[in-house]
Amino acid sequence: MTHVDPRMQPCIDNCLDCYSVCLSTAMNHCLQVGGKHTEPSHFRLMMGCTEICRTTAHFMLIGSPHHVHLCRECAEICDECAEDCERIGDMDECVEACRRCAESCRQMAA
Amino acid sequence: MTHVDPRMQPCIDNCLDCYSVCLSTAMNHCLQVGGKHTEPSHFRLMMGCTEICRTTAHFMLIGSPHHVHLCRECAEICDECAEDCERIGDMDECVEACRRCAESCRQMAA
Amino acid sequence: MTHVDPRMQPCIDNCLDCYSVCLSTAMNHCLQVGGKHTEPSHFRLMMGCTEICRTTAHFMLIGSPHHVHLCRECAEICDECAEDCERIGDMDECVEACRRCAESCRQMAA
Amino acid sequence: MTHVDPRMQPCIDNCLDCYSVCLSTAMNHCLQVGGKHTEPSHFRLMMGCTEICRTTAHFMLIGSPHHVHLCRECAEICDECAEDCERIGDMDECVEACRRCAESCRQMAA
Repeated sequence: MTHVDPRMQPCIDNCLDCYSVCLSTAMNHCLQVGGKHTEPSHFRLMMGCTEICRTTAHFMLIGSPHHVHLCRECAEICDECAEDCERIGDMDECVEACRRCAESCRQMAA
Repeated sequence: MTHVDPRMQPCIDNCLDCYSVCLSTAMNHCLQVGGKHTEPSHFRLMMGCTEICRTTAHFMLIGSPHHVHLCRECAEICDECAEDCERIGDMDECVEACRRCAESCRQMAA
Repeated sequence: MTHVDPRMQPCIDNCLDCYSVCLSTAMNHCLQVGGKHTEPSHFRLMMGCTEICRTTAHFMLIGSPHHVHLCRECAEICDECAEDCERIGDMDECVEACRRCAESCRQMAA
Repeated sequence: MTHVDPRMQPCIDNCLDCYSVCLSTAMNHCLQVGGKHTEPSHFRLMMGCTEICRTTAHFMLIGSPHHVHLCRECAEICDECAEDCERIGDMDECVEACRRCAESCRQMAA
């Protein structure tokens, strides 16, 4: 994208990737498997992660200076989601997407 | 809504109202009038306000404990948007919706 | 809202109400109760209903002529969601919000 | 993503790419340049394109069978947006992203 600060592009990509992986994992894998995967606190965390990633990418794309605060919040929620997915297990792709997103959000927020 | 903490309901309503008023004002009034109304920094602020309100309501509706941080950020952006709409003028409904939303988000974040 | 066609306003309100009720019901009631309430096909339908309502309101608020097609799709998904919530039971508020939204979307799409 | 039908993945990617390019072009390039770029009908079309792409990807990610209807609508709006961006000029990246997204949505809707 030529209209976006090039330092931001990898973070936008990581946010949209984490959004995609978390949402599809929750709505397909977690619902199918059930048990721990649909515990309210876990499922809510995944849906919150999905929403904050989507919105953080949006703030970077519209060029809002508030993206810094959103990136900070996004990093925090992604870290929590990665940890919870690791605890429950069998969601490696989600853990990795959350870690990658958290790391690049922290760089944008620094 | 019976499944939402009753103290949250007015804040959800104010967020969705502010989202609606800001978005319709930007996309109808501001684009039609032009001039100061489509200055990049003003228009971006209105679209950022729209997005943060929508997402803050979402976090309260899913019952995520992170709604507190979103409410704090939402109050900040709404205050800024109210001030900028007042400066440009002719957007009283938007100013009021932003002030009401900021006030109730601050209460949730306290 | 002064910048929105007054015939549209009730439909926007019904869409945002249905979005709120479906999302809070799914993420609080359904996840808590489990069993039939977290069957993949039911839960997916509720989350699809949530998303189409949110987006249909968005199209009306931005004044896009494509809102007619979104309203048609929204009515269809809301009808399906109402029926499925009735089948599973104990979600009267959701059934009513879906029916009201479907009815007003059909009027906009006519 | 392992939890998504592999035939869907390219369409999800094209939708999220078109969402990103349209949104950043509208909110950065169009607002900066002004004139024809902020004509209400053009700007509204770009924002509608942004929203339908975001939502169509969402429906595919949650595994809803209604994604077919959303893909059909998305293809129509993307075609219209590509044509309008071409008429106004200087938005080649957006034209290409819209065409690519329309084409892959049409395949999903077939």
